[in-house]
Amino acid sequence: MLVINLSVGTEKRGHLSVDEPTINLGLEGIYFTKSEVCKLDGINGRLYYRGYPIETLSKNSNFEEVCYLLLYGKLPNEEEFNIFASALKSESELPEQVISIIKDMSNKAHPMDTLRTAVSALSAYDNDVPDSSIDANMRKSVRLIAKTCSIVATIGRFRNGESYIRSKPNLSFAGNFLYMLNGSRQSQQNEKILDIMLMLHAEHSSNASTFSTLVAGATLSDIHAAVTSGIATLKGPLHGGADEAALAMMRAIGRPDNTEEYIESALEGKKRIMGFGHRVYKTYDPRARIIKVYLESMQDSSSEEVRNLTSIALRAEKLMVDKLGKTKGIWPNVDFFSGPVYTALGIPGYLFTPLFAVSRMPGWCAHMIEYWKSNRLIRPLEYYSGPIDLEYIPMENRS
Amino acid sequence: MLVINLSVGTEKRGHLSVDEPTINLGLEGIYFTKSEVCKLDGINGRLYYRGYPIETLSKNSNFEEVCYLLLYGKLPNEEEFNIFASALKSESELPEQVISIIKDMSNKAHPMDTLRTAVSALSAYDNDVPDSSIDANMRKSVRLIAKTCSIVATIGRFRNGESYIRSKPNLSFAGNFLYMLNGSRQSQQNEKILDIMLMLHAEHSSNASTFSTLVAGATLSDIHAAVTSGIATLKGPLHGGADEAALAMMRAIGRPDNTEEYIESALEGKKRIMGFGHRVYKTYDPRARIIKVYLESMQDSSSEEVRNLTSIALRAEKLMVDKLGKTKGIWPNVDFFSGPVYTALGIPGYLFTPLFAVSRMPGWCAHMIEYWKSNRLIRPLEYYSGPIDLEYIPMENRS
Repeated sequence: MLVINLSVGTEKRGHLSVDEPTINLGLEGIYFTKSEVCKLDGINGRLYYRGYPIETLSKNSNFEEVCYLLLYGKLPNEEEFNIFASALKSESELPEQVISIIKDMSNKAHPMDTLRTAVSALSAYDNDVPDSSIDANMRKSVRLIAKTCSIVATIGRFRNGESYIRSKPNLSFAGNFLYMLNGSRQSQQNEKILDIMLMLHAEHSSNASTFSTLVAGATLSDIHAAVTSGIATLKGPLHGGADEAALAMMRAIGRPDNTEEYIESALEGKKRIMGFGHRVYKTYDPRARIIKVYLESMQDSSSEEVRNLTSIALRAEKLMVDKLGKTKGIWPNVDFFSGPVYTALGIPGYLFTPLFAVSRMPGWCAHMIEYWKSNRLIRPLEYYSGPIDLEYIPMENRS
Repeated sequence: MLVINLSVGTEKRGHLSVDEPTINLGLEGIYFTKSEVCKLDGINGRLYYRGYPIETLSKNSNFEEVCYLLLYGKLPNEEEFNIFASALKSESELPEQVISIIKDMSNKAHPMDTLRTAVSALSAYDNDVPDSSIDANMRKSVRLIAKTCSIVATIGRFRNGESYIRSKPNLSFAGNFLYMLNGSRQSQQNEKILDIMLMLHAEHSSNASTFSTLVAGATLSDIHAAVTSGIATLKGPLHGGADEAALAMMRAIGRPDNTEEYIESALEGKKRIMGFGHRVYKTYDPRARIIKVYLESMQDSSSEEVRNLTSIALRAEKLMVDKLGKTKGIWPNVDFFSGPVYTALGIPGYLFTPLFAVSRMPGWCAHMIEYWKSNRLIRPLEYYSGPIDLEYIPMENRS
């Protein structure tokens, strides 16, 4: 039987070994589908949403428009935009029971566990769940984007001992997040910076959480099930948790003058520096390049903490680019610069990954809706490497 | 840029086309890891857990022992078994807040949505969540197996307007599920048949839900996040929902004498017959073979409904084996026979997929714990097939 299994592997994959099929660890380099949502050019450091360069979008667009673009595959005209943006606003309210779940969990669980549970629970309060039409999935996507934002702000509120507050219809998506988190409106500049951060994180091809969303949805479950799987996947420090980890490192460095010594000693000890290196980018992450400009503008910030973190981040980046980027192809990624920016916006570290989920929700939904158009169950193989045909020994005779 | 992306594909996969890399739709035939948990020999129709044939286990073992075998990779001696089985019993109680979530959701949501949310919420009440040691993961696995069983029985209770009841320490795992669902002990024969069904569904290599569990866990999230992703994936009718769909078809057939005409007309209309065909098995599913024996013994059942369903199932199977199995390699799978068996045990259709999650929990956990020993982020590629470098047109100029 072993031989037969192997021949399946060798025939299909054109591999020479007769002992073992090709095993694509982590599925690195394996294409599993076509997509028109996102082009990620890791060699040249370019990122496109629906064909538009990320530089163009972050300069000209806003998160609401990017959500529309990702979901519908085109930029909206004025009427389409207004309908879409007002739906995002009107769908932001949370069912009471979901607020209860957040309240119960927020002081016990990791914020990503609370977020995952709350988003999963939304399925009980959305009548469209069993409807798998594209229209219904678009409606559900808008609700998921809007309510995930409210859930994350509310996690922050409860963690601070405050209560849930509703969004304001006159604020933008980014503005509402900051308002619902803080209980008061923030500066327009801060709203704009968050809006850009949301755009930069909205989509990134088949990264682990988007892939997991597709694996869950490809059984023809539904979009709530699918994005719950995405959130579960985003929790890990190898994915969504990297920006918080990078910030923790900057805090450990403490003073800008300690930066070089800390990084060099970490590299000598072969420690991993979070926020550097990427499975696909083999050059400077284009998103990091955009954030760096904002970071540089923050060097004159009024807050000493932000000035310090910014300075540490910029010095660490310079050293790492010289030491690892140019020689080993390990470059800063988007996670490295996010921490100081979010800190400047008053967003606590424990909300970084949940906020990542808020911004990635349109990407997850757009991919899912696209994948269902030519759906195929995602089910790769494991190569069995254990013993076979073992004899069942009665319990009394086992050692 | 297009050229560079393509050359990555062509170099790595040895494909001739210069226009497009090889795209492995659904990752069919692609190996992504080695594993010692399960051997699924789809050509010869054999299934092994940790090297033991499923026929041997279903005949000699029980679900508790199979859980131990899957998690620890060996059969337990008496002391090990007793400790493990009593931990499964003592961990079966549910936190009050999780009972509330089930109660709130169970009359509004799909049972799989309730299950997914409740299991996700368990993370708030397990102090071991942040501990990623193997010992902690074993403890969490035992809790997840025990509590998922209680959650599913409780979903059934609330849906019937009954209240949550605790497990009984003198009953087996299978016995407790039936007790907690019905509020009274069921016959020993029924407990034994459910025990066998649980064993047959405990593990099945890298099927979609197990794979999704691994994708979520491979970011180094945690086992609660990972299995929540597994449950999200199991919901779909292409995976966990097939047995309920097969039963619905048998009910639609109604009388045994209608069977052949119904099936033949469905086949002529190119309708998919649920419970037949499998991504990996190209012959008779060995689990279906085992269940069929029990099904045949049920033909003398006292309940007319069960006698009818059994007769329809056996006649449909005979026809399908002649029509599709021997000619096209489409054979009955485990889902085809499960429905009549569960019906005989008094388990309602809406609990079939949740019960599948109960039985698969040890498989998910065993795979996850094994995968973390040589963890690698799972992140395949999409091939971008859309337009590129689009110009951003101001909103007022869009059509």
